[in-house]
Amino acid sequence: MQIGIIGIGLIGGSIAKDLYNQIGIEVIGYDTSPSHCETALHLQLVHRIESIEYITEKCETIIIAVPVDIIANILPLILDKISDKQLVLDVGSTKQKICAKVKAHPRRNRYVAAHPLAGTEFSGPEAAISGLFRNKKNIICERALSAKDAVDLSLKIFQSLGMHTYFLGPQEHDKHLAYVSHLSHVSSFMLGLTVLDLEKDEKQIFNLASTGLTSTVRLAKSSPKTWSAIFENNSEYVEEALENYISHLENFLQLLKQKDTKASYQLMEEANDIKRVLNGIVAEK
Amino acid sequence: MQIGIIGIGLIGGSIAKDLYNQIGIEVIGYDTSPSHCETALHLQLVHRIESIEYITEKCETIIIAVPVDIIANILPLILDKISDKQLVLDVGSTKQKICAKVKAHPRRNRYVAAHPLAGTEFSGPEAAISGLFRNKKNIICERALSAKDAVDLSLKIFQSLGMHTYFLGPQEHDKHLAYVSHLSHVSSFMLGLTVLDLEKDEKQIFNLASTGLTSTVRLAKSSPKTWSAIFENNSEYVEEALENYISHLENFLQLLKQKDTKASYQLMEEANDIKRVLNGIVAEK
Repeated sequence: MQIGIIGIGLIGGSIAKDLYNQIGIEVIGYDTSPSHCETALHLQLVHRIESIEYITEKCETIIIAVPVDIIANILPLILDKISDKQLVLDVGSTKQKICAKVKAHPRRNRYVAAHPLAGTEFSGPEAAISGLFRNKKNIICERALSAKDAVDLSLKIFQSLGMHTYFLGPQEHDKHLAYVSHLSHVSSFMLGLTVLDLEKDEKQIFNLASTGLTSTVRLAKSSPKTWSAIFENNSEYVEEALENYISHLENFLQLLKQKDTKASYQLMEEANDIKRVLNGIVAEK
Repeated sequence: MQIGIIGIGLIGGSIAKDLYNQIGIEVIGYDTSPSHCETALHLQLVHRIESIEYITEKCETIIIAVPVDIIANILPLILDKISDKQLVLDVGSTKQKICAKVKAHPRRNRYVAAHPLAGTEFSGPEAAISGLFRNKKNIICERALSAKDAVDLSLKIFQSLGMHTYFLGPQEHDKHLAYVSHLSHVSSFMLGLTVLDLEKDEKQIFNLASTGLTSTVRLAKSSPKTWSAIFENNSEYVEEALENYISHLENFLQLLKQKDTKASYQLMEEANDIKRVLNGIVAEK
């Protein structure tokens, strides 16, 4: 089976890498960046590079792994061209707008809307790593709008990457992801900016930063291209989450100013409860 | 040499653990919590538990590893009792108020104000790990106010833990630490609270949280006792940092609302620059 991967960055490249050595699979790559294509070949992420037209016409499975704004643009064009034997998968981090875009498309049933929950703060084909998806979760949205064979093949592909798939509506997906992922990225980007802004003396960041800072600003290294599209596509829920976050910070600032240590202590104790929830996550791994 | 450690939590316990097997050192512990004392003995962090009076009178070196508000309270009382052959070290995360408290003390020269930059989000003696300080940085403040032999012995102790010591004024220390460490903790505590607040459905945090959330809210698991004292002791700089952070978040929120993707993209690109600074840190490790 030929699997075509459109967009060979962190996610597309990592999927490619895990599929590359599976028996009977030929991984065909496409990327608008010639240097990404070259790197993908060099790192043996893909067997061949072909045009997007080739992939659309020939590949039994087409995986779209580009920023979410571009997915929304190219997905309908790809569905226009495929036969009813092909499968089109996307792996974007927002689902509502993308799903809405193709809801009435005559080939909607050949499309499966997916979001494998995995990643790192790095980007590009150099960032591709094998095993990125192992024991992680995958979400499929609007399962009922996809043909059964398309869903089954998608499940097999994600299973071969080591993922467990869950089903959620696109709106639910975007809401929950704004809370548990997108907000973390805003928080981290702006923390990075604040530290760079306040700490004019970079030597001191270098000297004094500990593992605490490294962990909280890790996501600030993420790709602006990927994340500006996600924030725009999911603006409603991201804004809601961000407003809530700012109001918690404002409240904490007031407590500090009022020297109300008892109240700020209590808020930190409530925040500690995230330990219990996350321990559940770790325990399940 | 008898080294007395007052407060056997994450930091005191980890210091104890690394000193425990060094030739010629007997580690004497004290903690107000009887269960901490029991655990410290059981985990072989300390050779013996003694009273604070015993430690003050008998130990050549006394390391104070309790929350910073308590350090400020007990440090003068300990200095009152020691001879001019003993060394008193504190390892608190703020230095200005503690140093000010003993500036005019007749035994000021037997005290060394230190801050080993290391830790985890866990607390208590169970959280003590060996090697916590290896290849990390230590700060000593007001070196000139400590006797040379006291500084030399302190340097030896931190060196035996694998640390490199730098010298900074207490005000500079507190300012930089607010930027590169304390703000990260506020950010993470409030992020934890926001996620718990927005995401009433804990099962979804559990299902959907990825490594991104785990990393940004990690510090939200930290001890409220330790951190409320740090925030109170360093309120001026923490408030400044937090105000700056909130204004960056507010600005980002406005850009999202205005759908000004170009401007938000640019901010994320600026934030990416933290990569360069942190890579320096990683490279040096």
